[in-house]
Amino acid sequence: MDLVLAIDFDDDRGAVGIVDPSGAVLETEPFERGAGGDIVDALDDALAQVWGRATRLDGAVVACGVATELAHDVARVAEVRDVVGRVTPVPLFTDTPGRAYALAEGWVGAAKGVDHYAVLDVGATVRGGIVLDGRLLDGGSGKSGGLGHVIVVPDGRRCTCGAKGCLQAEVSVPAIESRSGRPLNEPSYEVMQHVGALVGIALASVANLLDVRLLVCGGRVAREYASTMFLAAQSELDARCRLTFSRGARVVLGRTTETPGLVGAAAVGLRGLSRSGVV
Amino acid sequence: MDLVLAIDFDDDRGAVGIVDPSGAVLETEPFERGAGGDIVDALDDALAQVWGRATRLDGAVVACGVATELAHDVARVAEVRDVVGRVTPVPLFTDTPGRAYALAEGWVGAAKGVDHYAVLDVGATVRGGIVLDGRLLDGGSGKSGGLGHVIVVPDGRRCTCGAKGCLQAEVSVPAIESRSGRPLNEPSYEVMQHVGALVGIALASVANLLDVRLLVCGGRVAREYASTMFLAAQSELDARCRLTFSRGARVVLGRTTETPGLVGAAAVGLRGLSRSGVV
Repeated sequence: MDLVLAIDFDDDRGAVGIVDPSGAVLETEPFERGAGGDIVDALDDALAQVWGRATRLDGAVVACGVATELAHDVARVAEVRDVVGRVTPVPLFTDTPGRAYALAEGWVGAAKGVDHYAVLDVGATVRGGIVLDGRLLDGGSGKSGGLGHVIVVPDGRRCTCGAKGCLQAEVSVPAIESRSGRPLNEPSYEVMQHVGALVGIALASVANLLDVRLLVCGGRVAREYASTMFLAAQSELDARCRLTFSRGARVVLGRTTETPGLVGAAAVGLRGLSRSGVV
Repeated sequence: MDLVLAIDFDDDRGAVGIVDPSGAVLETEPFERGAGGDIVDALDDALAQVWGRATRLDGAVVACGVATELAHDVARVAEVRDVVGRVTPVPLFTDTPGRAYALAEGWVGAAKGVDHYAVLDVGATVRGGIVLDGRLLDGGSGKSGGLGHVIVVPDGRRCTCGAKGCLQAEVSVPAIESRSGRPLNEPSYEVMQHVGALVGIALASVANLLDVRLLVCGGRVAREYASTMFLAAQSELDARCRLTFSRGARVVLGRTTETPGLVGAAAVGLRGLSRSGVV
């Protein structure tokens, strides 16, 4: 059985795991950057533990997939390669968490078996990925899928990216908390509806632009605001997707929310392997 | 020399032509639907004339490409197939004018040699096509590229598609004339700027979403409003494309404006041939 070593991390925390060909996470070890510590050192320790346990598994690790916002930071990726290379020589592939999440939803989640879909992850940041014709779109720098930076309120709030009116500037966790003055999990009904409507507007643009009808939405905000948000988003899709090919577009909750990072990271590894011609 | 029989038409008028491998239009014959007449009958007559002249050309027609909004209307396409089939047995391929135009700009226009770009055609309708990784994106129904229905003014005007706030509802020729109460070619400076700003907002969403930096804009509005419109659009791109991969995105005037229909239609024929495995 071919297994994948999966690594997902951000600036402060992450997890290492082993994922099997069905997308099941067989081993997992979380890690955290201690005060003043380095995240890659923490990864190193967690990796040693997972790797020790992996020897007992029925199967061989054939690839390593890494999901991180640092995917395009050459120096940091080199450090990760170094750490992983000390335990295994398998090929290592990296991608961003939003794109990894899109692969995960297609592999074992809400878009399983679907050739055309977009995935939106609404959390501390707002990100995603787009699969058309069965392929994750890359674009010029391999970063296609910036759903968080679709313009939804042209005169809206300033985004962390520097632009104005991006979806992320309106519906990320910090944006919601700053606008409402309350923690994410204590929203008013109006806040949940507003977030849903803006998500729906962005997804309508994506559906009309790209000829996709399945829109998967996950992340902390989607889980917290649940049906109130989804009903508002669907209502915008119903009103704004009126082309022959976009009518009927629907937004559904992502299904890989329990361990999004590791399944997505494993999918990055498998995609890399498949594209590299190794398998 | 392999030639392509190219046909472009809308409800009222069109052209038939012969296009060579460099994208040059060697023969062309316009046609028009007479009062109470049928557009496919008019096409039939023009085709007979072009086909007669084509026999004198140095080369053989290897494919037929058709660009029309009816590309997905099975019955009408069957009529076109029938008419073309009576003069030549070459394989016939169809696509929509926006997508054909995107192929034309990549073949001989402003996106020549570029692997990642989006094309926007601003005229009586607002349409386009997207090329990523060197491929025209298809999507679920082969209609990817609906740039005219990206939402730019969430509470904006009603679009002909039935939605509200689509780019087309704001910047198509009828939308501009109805809002300003003046013909397209008698705009105020403010109208040209406003149109440019909305075009820029839509293109910024596309650049941020898809990781493309080259945005080609053509069509009657783009030609009429020229640099005033382009400067306003570029200004929005500069302000709203702030991601590492979208910063520096630029909008340029399309270069295949003289005979956009026929070059694009020929490109549809060549793409079809290449994808069908015939060549």
